[in-house]
Amino acid sequence: MKAVGPIPPEFVEQQGALTIAGRTAEDWAAEATPLFVYDLAIATARVMRFRTAFPNVALSYAIKANPHPPLVARMAELVDGFDVASAGELRLALRSKPAARIGFAGPGKRDAELAEAITAGATINLESEGEATRALAIADRIGSMPRLAVRVNPDIELRGSGMRMGGRPSPFGVDAARAAALVRRVVAAGADWRGLHIYAGSQALDAQAIIDTQAATISLVARLADEAGAAPPVVNLGGGFGVPYFANDRALDVERVGAALGGALEQRHEMLADTRFAIELGRWLVAECGVYLTRVVDRKESGGEVFVVVDGGLHHQLAASGNFGTVVRRNYPLAVAGRMGEPATGTVSVVGCLCTPLDRLGDRIALPHAEVGDLVAVFMAGAYGATASPTAFLGHPPATELLA
Amino acid sequence: MKAVGPIPPEFVEQQGALTIAGRTAEDWAAEATPLFVYDLAIATARVMRFRTAFPNVALSYAIKANPHPPLVARMAELVDGFDVASAGELRLALRSKPAARIGFAGPGKRDAELAEAITAGATINLESEGEATRALAIADRIGSMPRLAVRVNPDIELRGSGMRMGGRPSPFGVDAARAAALVRRVVAAGADWRGLHIYAGSQALDAQAIIDTQAATISLVARLADEAGAAPPVVNLGGGFGVPYFANDRALDVERVGAALGGALEQRHEMLADTRFAIELGRWLVAECGVYLTRVVDRKESGGEVFVVVDGGLHHQLAASGNFGTVVRRNYPLAVAGRMGEPATGTVSVVGCLCTPLDRLGDRIALPHAEVGDLVAVFMAGAYGATASPTAFLGHPPATELLA
Repeated sequence: MKAVGPIPPEFVEQQGALTIAGRTAEDWAAEATPLFVYDLAIATARVMRFRTAFPNVALSYAIKANPHPPLVARMAELVDGFDVASAGELRLALRSKPAARIGFAGPGKRDAELAEAITAGATINLESEGEATRALAIADRIGSMPRLAVRVNPDIELRGSGMRMGGRPSPFGVDAARAAALVRRVVAAGADWRGLHIYAGSQALDAQAIIDTQAATISLVARLADEAGAAPPVVNLGGGFGVPYFANDRALDVERVGAALGGALEQRHEMLADTRFAIELGRWLVAECGVYLTRVVDRKESGGEVFVVVDGGLHHQLAASGNFGTVVRRNYPLAVAGRMGEPATGTVSVVGCLCTPLDRLGDRIALPHAEVGDLVAVFMAGAYGATASPTAFLGHPPATELLA
Repeated sequence: MKAVGPIPPEFVEQQGALTIAGRTAEDWAAEATPLFVYDLAIATARVMRFRTAFPNVALSYAIKANPHPPLVARMAELVDGFDVASAGELRLALRSKPAARIGFAGPGKRDAELAEAITAGATINLESEGEATRALAIADRIGSMPRLAVRVNPDIELRGSGMRMGGRPSPFGVDAARAAALVRRVVAAGADWRGLHIYAGSQALDAQAIIDTQAATISLVARLADEAGAAPPVVNLGGGFGVPYFANDRALDVERVGAALGGALEQRHEMLADTRFAIELGRWLVAECGVYLTRVVDRKESGGEVFVVVDGGLHHQLAASGNFGTVVRRNYPLAVAGRMGEPATGTVSVVGCLCTPLDRLGDRIALPHAEVGDLVAVFMAGAYGATASPTAFLGHPPATELLA
């Protein structure tokens, strides 16, 4: 038997029928399965928790985590800005945020994407000197003053992060040693220099690691401002706040990170006195608010093992199947939606409907009895689910997405 | 420096500008990148090679490998049947094949899918006793005689296969020990019993392993026919023919497999004298015919490493990025499309345009110089590419697909 990840606190105390935002899972699933339900109240509570812990830091939502349009529209009311990673995401962001509150990062921005961002007035996080050259030329051609920030590949690594993005050769940003020169060039070209974007890693659960990284980032920013001879109007400190997906994962102590950042900002270099600091979060804001509901289609035995076959699978939940960015496959939190809090009656594997051995949502886990027609809930499904999965694989229908 | 996989024989001798089906890559890519080009002549040659090696075996195309509709329509003219894994694939298959030539496998078939297949007259490969019960009840309700085959989880493992699917507890098929009982039940229920479907693994490059598995499968089939007291009209031996993706992979000796299978079939149990044997192939037929072309957007240096950033990425080529079904990330065959056959001028990493460190198509590989605007070709891109990737991830446009 293998462990499952921790069911989020909003659901773990429930008994009997799982409810999401006051409605039962069966009620949500009445029309169609598989489906994602996103409970906006949970995402809102995360934002409020951030606001309390980080009173003087702006909050930006990374749309890539969950671009479901109704969710994005509601997030717009809660956060200060949006981070986008493509022209497609930019268009979606512009439906509910002014361009001045949108930052566009990504190592492979095409000329057409740069032109679209400059025309709209979004901030482009420059990923290289070459991209700066292209952006300035395009702005010149359009006759528009571009909003440009410089993305820095920091000489800092976020320890314990699920994906390290700093402290090593990277396709993201310009190396710290060359960043000030690029800032000077952007300023000299007459662009509206919006500041710096520094992202050292993601999915970190260790508060101290984030605290150390943020402190080092602020020192780096002071050094770069000094080198460049210009104070950044805005510094995007990146995100990196992780969420617990797997057994033994412990939730990040965000309040501790906030207190430490508050202290670090109070003592910041006087050159940064007027700089606005922002944190960019995707996963931490929305992972927990999402539940993926999928119906049991078959229950079968093979070689002494029991398989619960569901109508969903890795075409909607690639990460939960262990096939996206993880080396060792571990189980997400799963439950039988009608039997919350009931003791396990056996060990089963929950497999998706795809005709491939990769499609496994729960590997040899202890669950209460699940029969054909029952619903299985996969928790922590609000981030990097529907759009981070191969939806067209094997020709099954897309999942329904509902906002609660 | 890390190695890349072998460029397919159809392309490896080229010098200068890469051509696909007689047109240059630049010509193909003139309208849009990224794109997939599928050279039907290469897929056709694979079919012909199969026909020569397996003169008395039917050939079925597994649509899941590449469901691009124009390709499927042309494959229909070349192969005997189609294997589908969802109602969506079934509908696509029915556009160009009669239902009697279509087999539907998959562990999570919903009632609506079973009804659709029964109404159309496609063969359902039953994955469990429970699915048999549902299929028979639905057929009864519809008033139609269902075509049913029994999928068997063999007590045989395909050694050295990329994904083992037999010889262990499995969500696919019924265990061999229970298969004859299910056959008897299907026959007794008055269904049109179409035979057996036995799939022991996939992506195997070792001819002897496939030979041994096929011989064991034929023995198993004879045993089951004897136990069931009925000869299967058709036996789908599965596929499992691998293709070389990575350095040191050697192409499968298909002729050797064919000769051995021919011998085994000649000596088969007399009860199987009238049984038609089929092999189901996806990847082996179409992987090699596909080239993914993506344009260089940026070339940058970081920490002493060079990154070539392209406008494609894992949203079209998840497997090439090492994030789908592989434990150790290795490089697919890659080339600079304008400099075929030229010596390498340095070591670079080819990264996609997605704002995630997972998006890497070539990790520290030796390549001729590639500048902004050049095309990079990823070979072996015809199977499990466009539809086996998270196309909506980060809001970039889908890849164009063209049939040559």
